[in-house]
Amino acid sequence: MEQIAYVNGSFVPLSEAKVSILDRGFLFADGIYEVAAVLDGKLIDNASHLARLERSVGEIELALPETTARIQEIQQELVKRNNLVNGMVYLEVTRGADTGRDFAFPKGVKPTLIMFTSTKDIVNAPSAKTGINVITVPDLRWTRRDIKSVALLAQVLAKQTAAAAGAGEAWMIEDGKVTEGGSSSCFILTQDDVIVTRQNGSEILPGCTRKAVVALAEERQLRVEERAFSVEEALAAKEAFITSASLFVQAVVSIDGKKVADGKPGPMTNRLREIYVEFAKATAV
Amino acid sequence: MEQIAYVNGSFVPLSEAKVSILDRGFLFADGIYEVAAVLDGKLIDNASHLARLERSVGEIELALPETTARIQEIQQELVKRNNLVNGMVYLEVTRGADTGRDFAFPKGVKPTLIMFTSTKDIVNAPSAKTGINVITVPDLRWTRRDIKSVALLAQVLAKQTAAAAGAGEAWMIEDGKVTEGGSSSCFILTQDDVIVTRQNGSEILPGCTRKAVVALAEERQLRVEERAFSVEEALAAKEAFITSASLFVQAVVSIDGKKVADGKPGPMTNRLREIYVEFAKATAV
Repeated sequence: MEQIAYVNGSFVPLSEAKVSILDRGFLFADGIYEVAAVLDGKLIDNASHLARLERSVGEIELALPETTARIQEIQQELVKRNNLVNGMVYLEVTRGADTGRDFAFPKGVKPTLIMFTSTKDIVNAPSAKTGINVITVPDLRWTRRDIKSVALLAQVLAKQTAAAAGAGEAWMIEDGKVTEGGSSSCFILTQDDVIVTRQNGSEILPGCTRKAVVALAEERQLRVEERAFSVEEALAAKEAFITSASLFVQAVVSIDGKKVADGKPGPMTNRLREIYVEFAKATAV
Repeated sequence: MEQIAYVNGSFVPLSEAKVSILDRGFLFADGIYEVAAVLDGKLIDNASHLARLERSVGEIELALPETTARIQEIQQELVKRNNLVNGMVYLEVTRGADTGRDFAFPKGVKPTLIMFTSTKDIVNAPSAKTGINVITVPDLRWTRRDIKSVALLAQVLAKQTAAAAGAGEAWMIEDGKVTEGGSSSCFILTQDDVIVTRQNGSEILPGCTRKAVVALAEERQLRVEERAFSVEEALAAKEAFITSASLFVQAVVSIDGKKVADGKPGPMTNRLREIYVEFAKATAV
């Protein structure tokens, strides 16, 4: 059965899921997206994703075409229609298609809302056991990385560089510090057992999984510090890991070809992954 | 008659001109665009636009789906089919639509090529006589502005700020200097009659009209300096103007509400505009 997508009010086969070439998402990257994981047919941490969606669209003065409650219903309906058990729901909101191409916001144009799903067994992903190799690249992005916009060309180039090098993620570096991964938040566990991740701000996207992991760690009295760290610090750390909606928590076992500790996923990473999976299942909708 | 657009080999009514929601232009801003002016049914300075297109796609390792010679034929065919006399042809090339959404470059996916036209009497545009008001905004963009990518959200926000203030363009400022306009190159004429425009580099897009105007000025023994300038310098100048494919040369009569000289288009701006129109007509294809 062909996959079903959602486009502006309709559920359609993915091959027929299209937008106008005048859509501002296509012409200007004038749009916002979110990716929510699905476990056992339910959405993970979705309230957090929808809150971030609302914040992002607000930052670019884009009105959602549906309430977040309705968006969640559509996400759930799409999961159901695709019989999706484990995977992701991608959603994108753009400023819609005007009758022509003008940079300034159009008037009276309804925003575009599209969604599609993909299948992935996130909990049992092989890389969760082996960890991933990371390479570093300069962070080329704009100054408003806190907005989850579809203007992702810098991340595409970063992650392509990683893929070409056989690595699973690219860590982006600015002023000697790691900002974040191409599509993940970065963490280390220092030699004195402090979990370190960069503080939120316009330099990074406020990761939903990052936020949950920090909260879950703090609830368990683990020491967490939110500050920038360097690659050197990561290489001297006990552990390094990344978080994202489509990976949860995943060990980083090497950076630019140099092993992190013994080059294997560490116990804290594994523990946080288990804690997150438990949280995910408990809060799924 | 409805406007005709071009989508991947077909000429279709604009209302039916669509791309997949999986198109990487829509998901990742993984695409390049060009806008060429049309005068009397012919393309202006198109070789320059196609050369820049080739350079931009090369910088992101995107292969054109057609030769530039064939692209020009399609542009011309589209002009003809729309009976376009004066206006623009917009073209966009993206890395195509894969079967899913993965940041790294897909394999075996044909790039997307779309085009559409718009009508505008560039030569007789009212603002060519009156000049435009400009406001300034911080330059939020990424570090590879020499690539003409569709990741234009920063420019959308800049030009929306201008539109909301009743201005015709936003000049983007970085480190105290003007980089460029939201969709134009910036020039001033100093009190000692030197035409100044920022040098090319990764900080700005190498404007095609900018390049032609510099060459035309130099051919006429006018003094041109390629260097960055500040807003203060622009406000102390004899004249200020912008260039772009869809404006040609247009006077800037105020910046952030302060008049440039007497607040009227100056003789050098008018002269360069005339010279450019002459050049455009002589080289149209």
